[in-house]
Amino acid sequence: MKVAFQGEHGAYSEVAVFEHFGEGVEALPCESFDDVFAAVSDEQCDCGLVPIENSLAGSIHRNYDLLLHNRLHVIGEHYLRVSHCLIGLPGVRLDEIRRVISHPQALAQCEQYLRRLPGVRVDPVYDTAGSVKLVREAGDRTTAAIASQRAAQLYAMDVLDEKIEDSSSNFTRFLKIACQPQQPQDEAKTSIVFALKNQPGALFRALSVFALRDIDLTKMESRPLTGRPWEYFFYIDLLGSSGDQNVHNALDNLEEYATFLRVLGSYPRHRRDM
Amino acid sequence: MKVAFQGEHGAYSEVAVFEHFGEGVEALPCESFDDVFAAVSDEQCDCGLVPIENSLAGSIHRNYDLLLHNRLHVIGEHYLRVSHCLIGLPGVRLDEIRRVISHPQALAQCEQYLRRLPGVRVDPVYDTAGSVKLVREAGDRTTAAIASQRAAQLYAMDVLDEKIEDSSSNFTRFLKIACQPQQPQDEAKTSIVFALKNQPGALFRALSVFALRDIDLTKMESRPLTGRPWEYFFYIDLLGSSGDQNVHNALDNLEEYATFLRVLGSYPRHRRDM
Repeated sequence: MKVAFQGEHGAYSEVAVFEHFGEGVEALPCESFDDVFAAVSDEQCDCGLVPIENSLAGSIHRNYDLLLHNRLHVIGEHYLRVSHCLIGLPGVRLDEIRRVISHPQALAQCEQYLRRLPGVRVDPVYDTAGSVKLVREAGDRTTAAIASQRAAQLYAMDVLDEKIEDSSSNFTRFLKIACQPQQPQDEAKTSIVFALKNQPGALFRALSVFALRDIDLTKMESRPLTGRPWEYFFYIDLLGSSGDQNVHNALDNLEEYATFLRVLGSYPRHRRDM
Repeated sequence: MKVAFQGEHGAYSEVAVFEHFGEGVEALPCESFDDVFAAVSDEQCDCGLVPIENSLAGSIHRNYDLLLHNRLHVIGEHYLRVSHCLIGLPGVRLDEIRRVISHPQALAQCEQYLRRLPGVRVDPVYDTAGSVKLVREAGDRTTAAIASQRAAQLYAMDVLDEKIEDSSSNFTRFLKIACQPQQPQDEAKTSIVFALKNQPGALFRALSVFALRDIDLTKMESRPLTGRPWEYFFYIDLLGSSGDQNVHNALDNLEEYATFLRVLGSYPRHRRDM
């Protein structure tokens, strides 16, 4: 089993890959989200795992757009608890640190913690795991990186401090994408994308097909429809499988109102205590 | 009249300021969107103009969050047609260019055009107008920047090519923010933000208060509710003023369902041929 993810080895996406598939899986690092979708489409790997939303930062819009522009299927989801470590060269003490580097989003998520470190400069770099690699390569005892515990182990670095994120409710939801759809057996979720005629009440009518059938929506996101300013694609996640009669009827009903409708996939629901 | 905007002089936000307020206005450059909100809150200027959505790239989420976290009012909107120029040192010819720099979003919007320039490397920098300044300061005849016509004039540079964006439907919507609300006289729009109980059909019920009163929604956006994973703030723009009886009733009705509701402002609708 080979799974594509975005980032360097030690990235949070790779942590999610091993949590979801187990340690036996082969994780294939890709430079961009586009490359993950391409690796799956070209069958260089069995599937991909891409982040779609973070509970603090919001949706990862590029991946919504890529779901639309590729003919792949969503076959699973995974919730990862994001916990940041402050990582330095082996033997370094916390009070030696004068500079902290990481991805801008990781830095933002540790803002209050970083403010409590006296006289420390903060610099953004392109990647969390990449920031650990940079400190390692520079051999710089006064610079620390913010990344996952796995990144520290991988580059044989010391964890100077852990759980340094300001909010403990920091989760990222990942989608598992593959060339072939799956039909989930258990409790399921379904992801769809659709577009509507630009007329008053259109979205209300679209949502009615779910509400009137007691189908629970867990997420809605809108993205611009390229070439048609201020019209949108709507992405919805709902509880149930497209194979359920109730959901099937709702989607048939939605097709009457929609100018475009695609089922991105039905997959087993991942539950996680939060 | 003094208006804050994000970016350097020559930025598209500054172009929007002069289009909206006329050339007589004083434009105050700010480093970040946060600084624009602060400049208005601290009364360093009369109002601010911030981009909220681009027709190709989508919403500018930071500004949605800042609308929520500051007690400012939306008092206007402006649609800017974004048209990119390729800008080089005076006297430079297009075929001398070997490298193009600009903000990643501007580069993305000219992707097809750039692919047609043979042997040209593309490098992202922090700002569109800033990229013109960089080329000017480096005195580099082989590098061109992508920015507004205004940026070219401001730094006394040559426009090597214009309207180089791949899509002509490239618009950015700006919101005008101020300390005091206004009551629009003419055709109006209203922006609101609300949160709902996390229960099935909640969003459908919320939208019903508008649909059942024939109130047209022009935009809906969701943002994560910090500390409560997978719950959301919803931002809606609707046609009408909060002073209209119909809109007033709808908002009263929404308050019954909402756990939080704030009217960000009512303002004159800006119409623009697209």
